[in-house]
Amino acid sequence: MNTATDTDQSAASAFGGMLAEPLDIVNIGVESFGAPPAQAGATVTNLQWRPPAGGDDELGMKLAALTANPIIQKANDEAFEKMLSARAILKDVVPAREAIDVLSEGKALLHAGPPIAFDDMAGPMKAGVIGAALLEGWAQDEEDATRQAREGKISLHQTHDHMAVGPMGGIISPSMPVMVVEDPVNGNTAFTNLNEGAGRALRYGALGEDVMKRLHWISERLGPSLGAAIREAEEPIDLRSITAQALQMGDEVHSRNQAASTMTTRELAPGLARNADLGGIEALDFLRTNNYWFLNFSMVASKLGTHAGHNVKHSTLMTTFSRNGVNVGIRVSGLGDQWFTSPAAEVEGLYFPGYGPEDANPDIGDSAITETYGLGGFALAAAPAIVGFVGGTVDSAIRTTEEMATITHGRHREYQIPTLNFKGSPVGVDIRKVVDSGVEPVITTGIAHKEPGIGQIGAGLTVAPLLCFTEALKALEIPEA
Amino acid sequence: MNTATDTDQSAASAFGGMLAEPLDIVNIGVESFGAPPAQAGATVTNLQWRPPAGGDDELGMKLAALTANPIIQKANDEAFEKMLSARAILKDVVPAREAIDVLSEGKALLHAGPPIAFDDMAGPMKAGVIGAALLEGWAQDEEDATRQAREGKISLHQTHDHMAVGPMGGIISPSMPVMVVEDPVNGNTAFTNLNEGAGRALRYGALGEDVMKRLHWISERLGPSLGAAIREAEEPIDLRSITAQALQMGDEVHSRNQAASTMTTRELAPGLARNADLGGIEALDFLRTNNYWFLNFSMVASKLGTHAGHNVKHSTLMTTFSRNGVNVGIRVSGLGDQWFTSPAAEVEGLYFPGYGPEDANPDIGDSAITETYGLGGFALAAAPAIVGFVGGTVDSAIRTTEEMATITHGRHREYQIPTLNFKGSPVGVDIRKVVDSGVEPVITTGIAHKEPGIGQIGAGLTVAPLLCFTEALKALEIPEA
Repeated sequence: MNTATDTDQSAASAFGGMLAEPLDIVNIGVESFGAPPAQAGATVTNLQWRPPAGGDDELGMKLAALTANPIIQKANDEAFEKMLSARAILKDVVPAREAIDVLSEGKALLHAGPPIAFDDMAGPMKAGVIGAALLEGWAQDEEDATRQAREGKISLHQTHDHMAVGPMGGIISPSMPVMVVEDPVNGNTAFTNLNEGAGRALRYGALGEDVMKRLHWISERLGPSLGAAIREAEEPIDLRSITAQALQMGDEVHSRNQAASTMTTRELAPGLARNADLGGIEALDFLRTNNYWFLNFSMVASKLGTHAGHNVKHSTLMTTFSRNGVNVGIRVSGLGDQWFTSPAAEVEGLYFPGYGPEDANPDIGDSAITETYGLGGFALAAAPAIVGFVGGTVDSAIRTTEEMATITHGRHREYQIPTLNFKGSPVGVDIRKVVDSGVEPVITTGIAHKEPGIGQIGAGLTVAPLLCFTEALKALEIPEA
Repeated sequence: MNTATDTDQSAASAFGGMLAEPLDIVNIGVESFGAPPAQAGATVTNLQWRPPAGGDDELGMKLAALTANPIIQKANDEAFEKMLSARAILKDVVPAREAIDVLSEGKALLHAGPPIAFDDMAGPMKAGVIGAALLEGWAQDEEDATRQAREGKISLHQTHDHMAVGPMGGIISPSMPVMVVEDPVNGNTAFTNLNEGAGRALRYGALGEDVMKRLHWISERLGPSLGAAIREAEEPIDLRSITAQALQMGDEVHSRNQAASTMTTRELAPGLARNADLGGIEALDFLRTNNYWFLNFSMVASKLGTHAGHNVKHSTLMTTFSRNGVNVGIRVSGLGDQWFTSPAAEVEGLYFPGYGPEDANPDIGDSAITETYGLGGFALAAAPAIVGFVGGTVDSAIRTTEEMATITHGRHREYQIPTLNFKGSPVGVDIRKVVDSGVEPVITTGIAHKEPGIGQIGAGLTVAPLLCFTEALKALEIPEA
């Protein structure tokens, strides 16, 4: 909603000159219709409006039937409550091959987002496959790794099919350490890899000796010392409690994780110090400056949250949302494991010096699971300090959270936002509301270079394209009472 | 400013019944004058107003002359810039006797606030003296310690006279470890003791075996391991940089120090882990849950900041503000080391279960040095989450910061507040503005039980009483051009 400020004199003339008496006008839809009366002296309030379902009559009819259906409402209540009931307790760190069946033998790895063949992958994800093949000793060099991947000698699986999540390329290979995180309420376990920190990281598609050296160190020293520290921790490490605190401390726990990373490091520090022989002190050196550290924790906790609400019959809540750098895909609670996809959106943001939009890969990674669980872009109001990193203003951050609340089923009870007087963050995207309003879920995200081998070049905001939601809506059945 | 809501019918009658036409009235000063017209249907806006200098004509004349004086303005500009120029680099932790001359021999200790004799001390400060005497082995038991203190066998000095600060009772005795913090820009060094954490702490006047055991451990294990970790740190530990970040993370670094404490612990963790033999791992266990840890860092950095602006001839900026639990006192840049005192104010706040205002000691401790440097109550808008701890609402926290800006010389450039669109925190209280407006500086603080031996019973808000400021104003000279 805004007030027309057009000062075009011809527009005023077209409306018939100046008004004799003041007039208050509400203009719905096309904004330019409000300019002539405004120019003539009227107070014009422009309301944004688009026809439901993008003006598609058949879809509009279906949307109306779905929206009015009490069985869907009940299913969504159930899915929503299950999502909110989930806990996320950090239990261990082990090599991925010990935790994820499909990685237990042969040349297999996981990647982020909906399914994609190696040749179709975006640059940063291709680099991730190549780097993982080198890390595992499957290939002699980058060319050899590329050839093997192309010939199908390395089997590629989707993270979300194996209760795993990984940021950006999201590559998880057998020797990489993964966190094991449990939701005892719903009896689920999920996995994620360890964050490599900022700078040149495989997840962004960086390759090279420095990247490989760090990955080896993560497997050989960080993973084992961290696992020991977690197993010996004095209290259970409750990722939801840390997340709730971090939202009071300026994080939205997707693109800003400073408070949560610091808290998690403080929590683990005594255990790491006690496991100096396994690499604990080196781990503390690494964690001292890693402000992205909690991102993977945030993702795996969000995965447990959304998964708890998955597979509720007739529910129209989105339970997965991820991107492989070419396509974005969503899954819907009542529609099982089917992906509904759309070409990936561009990211609007701020670039590191020397880079610009022409270098950027489209939106990529599993990290949008945080938005799926009411964090990241949905909790933007909690992180006013992020605007210096992803762009925007403090006010626009607050407006974004409130706009997201128009497409969710409800609000978190535990995840509260101080600048909104401790209202909960909006959670549980209802695909009916997205199609009805045309409001697309907002995501805070990093920007990877589109070519393999380079890495992160910025950070910003993007959206989950409407097309995924209309496609999913078409697949929904209208339940009979 | 608020709108009159009085619905007393007789008031309306007194104003002459209902108005024939709508009327907008601005009522300045006595609020009840606005009620009759409001009752009669007028829109009344009550503006708060008090006569300058509390209606004291002589003081009012002097205030007018001081306010118009360009030499004072220039002196305040200079003091303000010096205050903002200060840095605070953590250099070491050593026993107090090695850092503070007056503690180098004999039975001597420091206490918070303006001067006070042992017999006149508040309960929590008395307990601090007794506990310190036991810690140092000067006394057999509490009675013996009390007798020695009463007979002047233990000499008592003020922290601020020795570039030291201590929260609550502020007792620093020779064997207690102190942090050594340097301001290389202005060539100053300041000291503070180590924070004992929440719960039963000597600074709040708690006594007993648990309290003494922790104090011994702090001297023998925490201090030495911390000193080693600081000396070996990879980068200088810059307390102003940590403070600036903490203000983006929901701390006002007086009564909420969660982000800063966590960051400081993460920063020191590798060094502590490397000094396991000195007590480093025990220190990490202790720091894992100490969310008050940074308070003392915040105080000593603020001391260096305010001290940099002290002793600027003719400056009317407050450079020290502290409380001994009976009196509060301020020092003014242009008035040297003279204290201007007032009886200590009550604290309005939230109490731990089982305690209430009748148990509370009045405002106590050196921690108001943080407000003197534009933090704590002055930065309340940075810490919306604190309202659950000290009372109030998010909006009232924002209003408090903006009200404090009306009595300061300017705003921090480095210490910014996200909810105010990154405006700086107000800093440099000008005593002329306090006397002129009657707006008293707001402080966030803990509440100690008034009896010795018990400890903290709550937290809340209080103010620096106007009387200190009018007394100081009387001592100012009007400079001649």
